[in-house]
Amino acid sequence: MSAELEEIHEECGIFGVWGHPDASRLTYFGLHALQHRGQEGAGIVSNDHGNLIGHRGLGLLTQVFSDEKDITKLKGDAAIGHVRYATAGSGGLDNIQPFVFRFHDGDIALCHNGNLTNCPSLRRALEDEGAIFHSNSDTEVLMHLVRRSVRKTLLDKLREALNTVHGGFAYLLLTENEMIGALDPNGFRPLSLGRMKNGAYVLASETCALDVVGAERIRDIRPGEIVIVNDEGYRIVRYTGLTQLSICSMEFIYFARPDSDIYGVNVHSARKRMGMRLAQESPVEADMVIGVPNSSLSAAAGYAEVSGLPNEMGLIKNQYVARTFIQPTQELREQGVRMKLSAVKSVVKGKRVVVLDDSIVRGTTSRHIVQLLKEAGAAEVHMRISSPPLKYPCFYGIDISTTQELIAATKSVEEIREFIGADSLAYLSLDGLVESIGLHEDAPYGGLCVAYFNGDYPTALDDYEEDFLASLSPDDRLRLARFAEEHSDYMDNEFHTVQIPRHAANIVPVDG
Amino acid sequence: MSAELEEIHEECGIFGVWGHPDASRLTYFGLHALQHRGQEGAGIVSNDHGNLIGHRGLGLLTQVFSDEKDITKLKGDAAIGHVRYATAGSGGLDNIQPFVFRFHDGDIALCHNGNLTNCPSLRRALEDEGAIFHSNSDTEVLMHLVRRSVRKTLLDKLREALNTVHGGFAYLLLTENEMIGALDPNGFRPLSLGRMKNGAYVLASETCALDVVGAERIRDIRPGEIVIVNDEGYRIVRYTGLTQLSICSMEFIYFARPDSDIYGVNVHSARKRMGMRLAQESPVEADMVIGVPNSSLSAAAGYAEVSGLPNEMGLIKNQYVARTFIQPTQELREQGVRMKLSAVKSVVKGKRVVVLDDSIVRGTTSRHIVQLLKEAGAAEVHMRISSPPLKYPCFYGIDISTTQELIAATKSVEEIREFIGADSLAYLSLDGLVESIGLHEDAPYGGLCVAYFNGDYPTALDDYEEDFLASLSPDDRLRLARFAEEHSDYMDNEFHTVQIPRHAANIVPVDG
Amino acid sequence: MSAELEEIHEECGIFGVWGHPDASRLTYFGLHALQHRGQEGAGIVSNDHGNLIGHRGLGLLTQVFSDEKDITKLKGDAAIGHVRYATAGSGGLDNIQPFVFRFHDGDIALCHNGNLTNCPSLRRALEDEGAIFHSNSDTEVLMHLVRRSVRKTLLDKLREALNTVHGGFAYLLLTENEMIGALDPNGFRPLSLGRMKNGAYVLASETCALDVVGAERIRDIRPGEIVIVNDEGYRIVRYTGLTQLSICSMEFIYFARPDSDIYGVNVHSARKRMGMRLAQESPVEADMVIGVPNSSLSAAAGYAEVSGLPNEMGLIKNQYVARTFIQPTQELREQGVRMKLSAVKSVVKGKRVVVLDDSIVRGTTSRHIVQLLKEAGAAEVHMRISSPPLKYPCFYGIDISTTQELIAATKSVEEIREFIGADSLAYLSLDGLVESIGLHEDAPYGGLCVAYFNGDYPTALDDYEEDFLASLSPDDRLRLARFAEEHSDYMDNEFHTVQIPRHAANIVPVDG
Amino acid sequence: MSAELEEIHEECGIFGVWGHPDASRLTYFGLHALQHRGQEGAGIVSNDHGNLIGHRGLGLLTQVFSDEKDITKLKGDAAIGHVRYATAGSGGLDNIQPFVFRFHDGDIALCHNGNLTNCPSLRRALEDEGAIFHSNSDTEVLMHLVRRSVRKTLLDKLREALNTVHGGFAYLLLTENEMIGALDPNGFRPLSLGRMKNGAYVLASETCALDVVGAERIRDIRPGEIVIVNDEGYRIVRYTGLTQLSICSMEFIYFARPDSDIYGVNVHSARKRMGMRLAQESPVEADMVIGVPNSSLSAAAGYAEVSGLPNEMGLIKNQYVARTFIQPTQELREQGVRMKLSAVKSVVKGKRVVVLDDSIVRGTTSRHIVQLLKEAGAAEVHMRISSPPLKYPCFYGIDISTTQELIAATKSVEEIREFIGADSLAYLSLDGLVESIGLHEDAPYGGLCVAYFNGDYPTALDDYEEDFLASLSPDDRLRLARFAEEHSDYMDNEFHTVQIPRHAANIVPVDG
Repeated sequence: MSAELEEIHEECGIFGVWGHPDASRLTYFGLHALQHRGQEGAGIVSNDHGNLIGHRGLGLLTQVFSDEKDITKLKGDAAIGHVRYATAGSGGLDNIQPFVFRFHDGDIALCHNGNLTNCPSLRRALEDEGAIFHSNSDTEVLMHLVRRSVRKTLLDKLREALNTVHGGFAYLLLTENEMIGALDPNGFRPLSLGRMKNGAYVLASETCALDVVGAERIRDIRPGEIVIVNDEGYRIVRYTGLTQLSICSMEFIYFARPDSDIYGVNVHSARKRMGMRLAQESPVEADMVIGVPNSSLSAAAGYAEVSGLPNEMGLIKNQYVARTFIQPTQELREQGVRMKLSAVKSVVKGKRVVVLDDSIVRGTTSRHIVQLLKEAGAAEVHMRISSPPLKYPCFYGIDISTTQELIAATKSVEEIREFIGADSLAYLSLDGLVESIGLHEDAPYGGLCVAYFNGDYPTALDDYEEDFLASLSPDDRLRLARFAEEHSDYMDNEFHTVQIPRHAANIVPVDG
Repeated sequence: MSAELEEIHEECGIFGVWGHPDASRLTYFGLHALQHRGQEGAGIVSNDHGNLIGHRGLGLLTQVFSDEKDITKLKGDAAIGHVRYATAGSGGLDNIQPFVFRFHDGDIALCHNGNLTNCPSLRRALEDEGAIFHSNSDTEVLMHLVRRSVRKTLLDKLREALNTVHGGFAYLLLTENEMIGALDPNGFRPLSLGRMKNGAYVLASETCALDVVGAERIRDIRPGEIVIVNDEGYRIVRYTGLTQLSICSMEFIYFARPDSDIYGVNVHSARKRMGMRLAQESPVEADMVIGVPNSSLSAAAGYAEVSGLPNEMGLIKNQYVARTFIQPTQELREQGVRMKLSAVKSVVKGKRVVVLDDSIVRGTTSRHIVQLLKEAGAAEVHMRISSPPLKYPCFYGIDISTTQELIAATKSVEEIREFIGADSLAYLSLDGLVESIGLHEDAPYGGLCVAYFNGDYPTALDDYEEDFLASLSPDDRLRLARFAEEHSDYMDNEFHTVQIPRHAANIVPVDG
Repeated sequence: MSAELEEIHEECGIFGVWGHPDASRLTYFGLHALQHRGQEGAGIVSNDHGNLIGHRGLGLLTQVFSDEKDITKLKGDAAIGHVRYATAGSGGLDNIQPFVFRFHDGDIALCHNGNLTNCPSLRRALEDEGAIFHSNSDTEVLMHLVRRSVRKTLLDKLREALNTVHGGFAYLLLTENEMIGALDPNGFRPLSLGRMKNGAYVLASETCALDVVGAERIRDIRPGEIVIVNDEGYRIVRYTGLTQLSICSMEFIYFARPDSDIYGVNVHSARKRMGMRLAQESPVEADMVIGVPNSSLSAAAGYAEVSGLPNEMGLIKNQYVARTFIQPTQELREQGVRMKLSAVKSVVKGKRVVVLDDSIVRGTTSRHIVQLLKEAGAAEVHMRISSPPLKYPCFYGIDISTTQELIAATKSVEEIREFIGADSLAYLSLDGLVESIGLHEDAPYGGLCVAYFNGDYPTALDDYEEDFLASLSPDDRLRLARFAEEHSDYMDNEFHTVQIPRHAANIVPVDG
Repeated sequence: MSAELEEIHEECGIFGVWGHPDASRLTYFGLHALQHRGQEGAGIVSNDHGNLIGHRGLGLLTQVFSDEKDITKLKGDAAIGHVRYATAGSGGLDNIQPFVFRFHDGDIALCHNGNLTNCPSLRRALEDEGAIFHSNSDTEVLMHLVRRSVRKTLLDKLREALNTVHGGFAYLLLTENEMIGALDPNGFRPLSLGRMKNGAYVLASETCALDVVGAERIRDIRPGEIVIVNDEGYRIVRYTGLTQLSICSMEFIYFARPDSDIYGVNVHSARKRMGMRLAQESPVEADMVIGVPNSSLSAAAGYAEVSGLPNEMGLIKNQYVARTFIQPTQELREQGVRMKLSAVKSVVKGKRVVVLDDSIVRGTTSRHIVQLLKEAGAAEVHMRISSPPLKYPCFYGIDISTTQELIAATKSVEEIREFIGADSLAYLSLDGLVESIGLHEDAPYGGLCVAYFNGDYPTALDDYEEDFLASLSPDDRLRLARFAEEHSDYMDNEFHTVQIPRHAANIVPVDG
């Protein structure tokens, strides 16, 4: 976890395995490696000869699976699992995935990482046709679309459904005979396929989960692809040709684990390069570099290496912070009572320090860090942020829903510096970010979604568009319209109702 | 937490505050900063106008205090608290501290960090006189001694009792009118006194707990001292003049938090110096330095700085490891399923790496780390340990009870290297350790207990002695006898039954 | 509870209130009075200005609502609730009612007492049209039918749905504006409407629940009726004219609480009359009458009164039997270890006793009672059963699913007597039962369903028919066909697929 | 349970078994039959070859032992157990029995039913000698006395200790080699010895617990006796010759189960005789007799038999009342919302009813019953109480601690009648009570303690005396002094400090 970005939450991690006698236990370990993607709920469903068995609950994986029998009861040689961050108002047990649907023609389990931009209108339309929903989750919509499709095979029904939902999604399904993964046309969320030594196949949100179960990565699932795994092996088909990679840049900046590789780029190395680039873009005379633990340690190492300054441990993070129910009163907070971070006085006392962090959201945490270091005796505090200013919300699966909560949406860098009390403040440039990550896909920004920084959303915003446009300043609205025009050759498929045109640089023919 | 040393457990952390309206909440935060000292039980007792109120339970602090009312019910402006590691066979709720004793002449709460060497014989003697014990804890013995003393005041009763118990201990008591701390004659465990802005006094196992509540350190409690805090302030008295500092060197190597200072020495800085010294003592041609997260990152930084090698993040620790109930089967383990640590392939692939860790206990974790790195493609793995080989058990509060479980007790360095599969292995020298820590007390080893490394125990072992001597090789027995002779001028006080003579370099007159 | 009939379970109790500021608390007390109808799950949903809020869980009401806030959070002036017995394989939390369905056009809560005979085929048909079910419950089917109806108003949709489901049911719905109750065309389950002093309306499975909240009974809901309660009052409409009362005779014999009145007949008084009639039909020379506590005490009083024998307390029931997780081993059972019932030795020793019980299911409990009394010294034990032999399963909401488990289905009275070890055994005649209850509706058996005794099912059995007929002996099949013929003038409505003709004596015109 | 007497609580039930492979399971069933004696805590300790293993918790037995393994872990062929009612201020887990004491010379488990009159002064004296108490329980005092005794054998230590404690007590101990029971010199509490078919011995508070495990009663333990059970059989010794039976009359009136026999008198039969006598003493012209369920049903049967009136079920008790956390608000209570009892309207409407109850404590429940019946339409309500007016507290183990809470202590019968609103009210006479129970011991009141009715306490009140005398009116003090004089030939043993002389009619020589 970082400091400021702890306030922003990834919504999910998914993991599945097909073809291993310990399938549910492996899924447990895979999810354990993905716990950073969601801490508020977890579940696993196994396939015991076609009979799907599930166990799910609120809290950390270790809380949900608190007894050996919670795993041993999940018999069978295939399983899928999910860890989730519960968005506001949807915290109940009913929303914990994977969902299990039981039909007279067989059970299906389903889970999901992402967010659909046309979910509200799809729910409304389905309800009008008699559908009954049992959760607030976007996930359930897909199953209703699948079940209502008149196509003959599950795969064809699924293809139709995937062409109807918009936004960011990585789905994982488990049926009697197959495990199926599917990615949205922009590939906002990562999803990798791997193989274990015994031949079992694994699908996981991040490669760190493949590593943890000893699986070797075969390849990343790409935009618009469906991967079907069964006893005969795996095959990959496309459900749309209108694809263009726009993987979430936040995965590299903050969410993903440093040991994960995304499209061949190691996350730790990308972060280190961000720090190196930042040292070139915004050097400062100082005595040491300090990374905010844990997620900014990589960037700090890079900044230190390029600047020639020593990389010191000037901030300590309490490892036991998660889920504290007892909070300091306001009075105690004013008296200096703090829980998450401590400054190491004997390291920083009298020193000019450069502090590396990965982002500033509201600014309150950064202000807290500057204050901590100054109280510990730091002579100067120079804040360096290894990503550009965060100005726009995400609609594809990250819980930043309004611009109002983003300090950079309304304040200049100098105003932010003043607010947080640092002696200097600098952000990494957008070019610096894109080049540090170093994806080289034939797509805008090398294949990254950088909408949080410049508003250049790669898809129509559908049900969210009206409110989003209303939240913008006239200037911003104009600027975003210009972005859209520049990428106006992106063609929409039949299911989309385009309001903001999207990029079309990477259109490929349907082959699925 | 380190890697190998996770297998060794500190037994406790203690914290108390006198004179603050939020006493129990502050104690919660103080204990939270000490959670690394014990994760299996926690408790807080507050003083509500002489009426002691307690709350305690098994598990992490956040599990024991899972509801705001768990704190708000602990009214009053003084409180003491405890986090504990439960030693084998004593895991029940009955052993969770602080204990509250209710007498017709007032309540007393008591908690304890350490281990008494003469506890079994004291219990036996007390039982023979009609005492009834309700826990397995060493802590209860002190209260029986206090209550049976014929002295008139609590302070005098306590002095007598403290002269009767032997070994390592830091006690914390709470009565209607006072909070009292007491340290053993060797000061094996750290204990610091601080003051808050509002004038409240705080006693804590480590200074990081003072920092977290915004208290300023006044001074460390020293061997043989009793500190009494009440509404009029604090005063320090001695209960024995036969004292000599022998603070546990493991506190610096592994247990204490890096931001804590012990007798003025910052723990992070001491660890960094260990790494620097190790780079001088045992250099190696390599491409990078990797610290085993989290506790060896400081030493790695030191090694990197002196060696001129880059300090890389080649190992990642899963932050959610604590308390996993589900374990990989042996078969899965052989298939490479692992949970705690991951190697970052893209960092280490093809590289010659120096791995810094703080200790080797059984050797299994080190072997696992070497294997992880080699599987990730490391060309060479050079293990460097920032402390000397661990050969002897501790009898003063750390859970290393037999030499059998220590690989260095029976194997040479070369045999250990072979066992763990490293390309080279080197330990820090004992001199290197003592000088890196840099305590300069007028006592053997500068005031450190280094018995784990060389068997030079600073006190008689009392009830443990017979079994310990039996476990040694004849050579070792001879060598240890020689140690004892060298320090033979250490005089025993009337209560001790000396079997192995102890150091007496630092004898001071009783003044309490 | 009775002795043998404890093995047979009612499936549910329902309760609702409209127009009281303490609606959820009243519902709690109402359900508390209905707890005997279901002990394995409970739930309440309240209407807080159109926003439905629910709380439900497994176990007794007092376990599900274990905290004052479980009730206070259920705000609003209307609420419905449910207690349930979980049939095999459907014990999960997902099946606890009331269900809450959330639609863009408003929330609906629904609960149910009964069993649908065409549920499996309806589920299959609905799934084929894309419906997704989330429980195993019959209840959910109704909501799918309602939501898929093309009628315009909820009432019309509901009418259509009620005409599509077959079997025994009492539904209770809660919407933003209304509370709605509905009864099947045969009125298998009781449902009463009452009014509180403040004008609030109450619907409850039994009148004892009206009494407990101080409500006055207005009238029983009758077969085929829908009752709509809203802020303007209540009105009753019919959704079918093809109705005929066949209320479950077991309600009188065993299920209902003695203080309840059903169609004007008090349950205790009916039971007492059964005992009186039994004394006339099957007198015996004896010293005393003993009722099996608690449900046969009424019948025992009646038998004693007519026979002139003293009514003694010879059997004691342990009041704390519910939910014991620890069971005697077979060996202990053979040694005489028993938990539920005890014989009072000093009462029965040397005496000839008449034991009154309400039914014999498998015969094992009766055998146990006889054995208990003989071991306690009873000279003779004469068993008298206040209902006819139980031979056929129920398909309308009572958990007797196969004839195999019924001893009277395969054994003669003499064989049963021998099996249970009594000195004599007699059952009440069917005529005796019908006349003792004394309903005087213009319908077969005075308006009672007595199919458990003679197989005369008042409706088609739909999905259950094939298996049921297969379980019968040829003679029984013939006899049942004859029954059907006798009542062949009963006309089916358009939705029914008649296989066994039903009675039609009580057809009334549709007026809803 | 009765109505009014539910407000008065027995403090405990005890059960033990020696010599059965299923000892802990049998103890569970034995305690289950004694659950009516205490519902707030339970525990069992088994003897696994000298190693005592315990399990205990708050709540009903079924809550404390909620899992099969809670019993299976309690291995061994001997066990003792306890159910308790927690008196005010002592509700914590620390007070749940049996207590296990672990000594270097072996474990001892101990539990207790009763109350010591000199407990406060004994605790004080023991503390002054260094004893540390861990509970508020009277039970622990005995163990401190035993451990401090200088006698050589456990039996001699125990004898000394039993002569030091005063009041009412039935102790049960378990050691490596023996199970020991002991009764106070007045035998206030019942305790019976039985034998199972396999030869195992059982000790239990009531014979109903012997019956439930199939044990045959050998004999009741008598005042001043110790019973020792071991592998060789049992033997009974005396620890004092100054004994005189004064068994609590409340055991017959209310506490004991109707199927229990105490000193050969069956409880149900005694209650029935009380009702018969009451019909003779206080007849009334009426239409029916109604017993308040459950404990007054026996008396009602007796009243009905003698009066020739029908015995009707006019009041129904909800079987699921235990442990309701949700309570009606005052407003709801006024609207008639009620939970425990219901009147059966169709039975009582227009009728003149005689209601039998066993006691009146505060009068509020009786008033509630009268009101219930009148609201249900009863023409007249005549209350008949099958015991004399309750005027004085108990100091031997029943929770009636002050006279203030007893309505009969301050009001005349006519005033009480007016308060409860009955048309007439009559109590059983004291002679009637004594004769109905029909114990014929050579001791005052035939061997009963009737102090609740007339203040004639059979022992000194020790630490309670001062407050008790202060609570009395001058007249009452005088009258009680006269009682004491009449029985002045009762000699005190050396340990007693006599203030109110006690009866001595039944002195027997020490033979233990």
